[in-house]
Amino acid sequence: MSTVGEICAKAREASRASATLSTEVKDRALGAMADALIERVGFLVEANAEDVSRAREGSASNTVIDRLTLTEGRIASMSDGLRAVARQPDPVGEVVGGWKRPNGLLIEKVRVPLGVVAVIYEARPNVTADVSGLCLKSGNATILRGSSIALSSNRAIVDVLRDALSTAGAPKDAIQLIPDSGRESAIELMQAKGSIDLLVPRGGKDLIQAIESNATVPFIIDGDGNCHVYVDRSADPQMATDIVVNAKTQRPSVCNAAETLLVHEEIADKWLPGLLDDLSAAGVEIRGDERTRSLWPEASAATDEDWGTEYLDLKIAVRVVPSLDDAIAHVNRWGTSNADAIVTQDVGAARRFTTEVDSGSVFVNASTRFSDGGEFGYGAEIGISTQKLHARGPMGLRELTTTKYVVWGEGQVRS
Amino acid sequence: MSTVGEICAKAREASRASATLSTEVKDRALGAMADALIERVGFLVEANAEDVSRAREGSASNTVIDRLTLTEGRIASMSDGLRAVARQPDPVGEVVGGWKRPNGLLIEKVRVPLGVVAVIYEARPNVTADVSGLCLKSGNATILRGSSIALSSNRAIVDVLRDALSTAGAPKDAIQLIPDSGRESAIELMQAKGSIDLLVPRGGKDLIQAIESNATVPFIIDGDGNCHVYVDRSADPQMATDIVVNAKTQRPSVCNAAETLLVHEEIADKWLPGLLDDLSAAGVEIRGDERTRSLWPEASAATDEDWGTEYLDLKIAVRVVPSLDDAIAHVNRWGTSNADAIVTQDVGAARRFTTEVDSGSVFVNASTRFSDGGEFGYGAEIGISTQKLHARGPMGLRELTTTKYVVWGEGQVRS
Repeated sequence: MSTVGEICAKAREASRASATLSTEVKDRALGAMADALIERVGFLVEANAEDVSRAREGSASNTVIDRLTLTEGRIASMSDGLRAVARQPDPVGEVVGGWKRPNGLLIEKVRVPLGVVAVIYEARPNVTADVSGLCLKSGNATILRGSSIALSSNRAIVDVLRDALSTAGAPKDAIQLIPDSGRESAIELMQAKGSIDLLVPRGGKDLIQAIESNATVPFIIDGDGNCHVYVDRSADPQMATDIVVNAKTQRPSVCNAAETLLVHEEIADKWLPGLLDDLSAAGVEIRGDERTRSLWPEASAATDEDWGTEYLDLKIAVRVVPSLDDAIAHVNRWGTSNADAIVTQDVGAARRFTTEVDSGSVFVNASTRFSDGGEFGYGAEIGISTQKLHARGPMGLRELTTTKYVVWGEGQVRS
Repeated sequence: MSTVGEICAKAREASRASATLSTEVKDRALGAMADALIERVGFLVEANAEDVSRAREGSASNTVIDRLTLTEGRIASMSDGLRAVARQPDPVGEVVGGWKRPNGLLIEKVRVPLGVVAVIYEARPNVTADVSGLCLKSGNATILRGSSIALSSNRAIVDVLRDALSTAGAPKDAIQLIPDSGRESAIELMQAKGSIDLLVPRGGKDLIQAIESNATVPFIIDGDGNCHVYVDRSADPQMATDIVVNAKTQRPSVCNAAETLLVHEEIADKWLPGLLDDLSAAGVEIRGDERTRSLWPEASAATDEDWGTEYLDLKIAVRVVPSLDDAIAHVNRWGTSNADAIVTQDVGAARRFTTEVDSGSVFVNASTRFSDGGEFGYGAEIGISTQKLHARGPMGLRELTTTKYVVWGEGQVRS
């Protein structure tokens, strides 16, 4: 049996045990994992130093090295993250619904773990702890496959977490790391049909493409975020400015940052030039349609490519629209169904936008940057689904479960 | 644009409209559809006669011709089915959950339609009406692709239903039929990524295999049902007999019929021979393990192949197990996670079986034959999911929806 095959077999066995762990044992294990990260901080920093020096020799960019580096402070955050997951309610066993049939059958729909969850991810070693914690609390076994650049760090973290599992009475093999990071093992994981119940890729376009062309196991895509802010004619101008500036500039490199601004023509003349001055002063490059450029001539001309692009950068596309309908149509035509916002004082406009915009998260008078598991109160997040099936939007513990019907009878047979 | 491409484009447009139809309009449309089937029964029977005579010429089996044939009675059942769907609660707009964050953001998780649902199915023309009704009530647009053998019938049914939609003020293109039934159009549908939000195959292994190897759109598999009944040592013997006989013989050709019987050794001596006499008298062929054959020598020897086979026929595999643990392990090893039952008077055994057996539906003291959308009270069913993601077990209206987060703020930005 291949290494991946062996790991999958052990994970399946561990998943049977972790599915029935009590909340008490799981929370104790999460506490032990959090403690162990702090106690063994020296060991972790040392292992991480190997990765960092190898990355430096391989002339990785400063951004990559920053993401890779584990400090005492970052390890403390990982530890806090595990404690936050422990404080979340246990999703396993939740009775989602139930009803009695005319023949007396009592049908209960109960939340149960998925089984084996595999995560393929890139540089950040903190994902190793986050994902392990979320999967354990939701009663699953996890298979982790990080990137080669972080292999020593991930090995060390997983060692520490597995030891802690044992001391708390949870199965060690509920957390396993694929010990190499070659392409073959990733492909093998993607094709381990029947062995893996959910695969979550956390990475860029290349990884997602590889999953889409190779995976035979069920997966959830954490995809693009071409997010919009629509400023309605009834918007409070100051609120609109605050939200657009925040959504665009607070952290432009992430999927919930705004990429396109739509402005109702009745507010554009008065409000838009000042807003674009502010954005420009904050270093944002402006690309506008004709109306925008007539109001703010420094803007370059936006093309269809701009409407369809997730810049992930200090750039914004701006369009003046004649109506709410046009704004909704634009978002549904060009958006990626991730997160979109309306700024308005008109309850009718808010209701129509939230109903008709086909996105995972729709915001009224708030920044798109809140589309995030932590901000939603999920403790940590496994990702943000851009799919419609199973989970949509920020994914927490519940999204790592499935349901089962439990039907109680007294001898009923079907006639 | 190809025919399938045009149909997909019209469906997307119709889906925007059907997503926001009021419950009143949807129920009125379902009523109009139900009425129209009755009013135009002559037209439908005539169109169906063409299919039936073509099938006879092509020397289709009697079973196929029976499934294909539309009588007045069957058309009345289709009509009743649409009325039953109208009586179901509207899933669209249901607030699944909601909470307030410390920063004042109000997060609501709201049920919304998937968008465009495509169904590929085989002979039975009643599926055309069932699926159309379920998709309309759940606010989706439907693309139907039936089999060539039923093409005239399906065309006629869809014509009638579309006319009824118009009269009720719903978009006609919310129900469309692919006008040919060649393999190419099926493959094109499976690969219409971005145009189809969910594809449901209703058919045999070949169709499922084609979907698994070709589909790029999201799909839900309605797969095998290798169902088990486990008779615990504490079972009521008469109840056990009734349930096993019902689960095996009431309709052996369907996915929720029992295929394997597991019997606790402490009850086997007294109960099993009489049960096997009854099954045998009902025409069931018995394949048993060694213990079974020592108690009932006429049984032929069961092999691993028997434990793994969905007979869909009057055959049963029988194994005597030394414990509840062995029964659970057998089901998890050989089952297909569809529907499994325990017969027991012991509440501890019932709780362990329902918790540890990893199936979509687990029954206590009831026949596996109840794993069915109608029996669960869903009015009609779109299928029985054997997946863990999105939907598991019998699928009704809710399973044709996704959710969306609607977040209400008062100008919140992220710091």
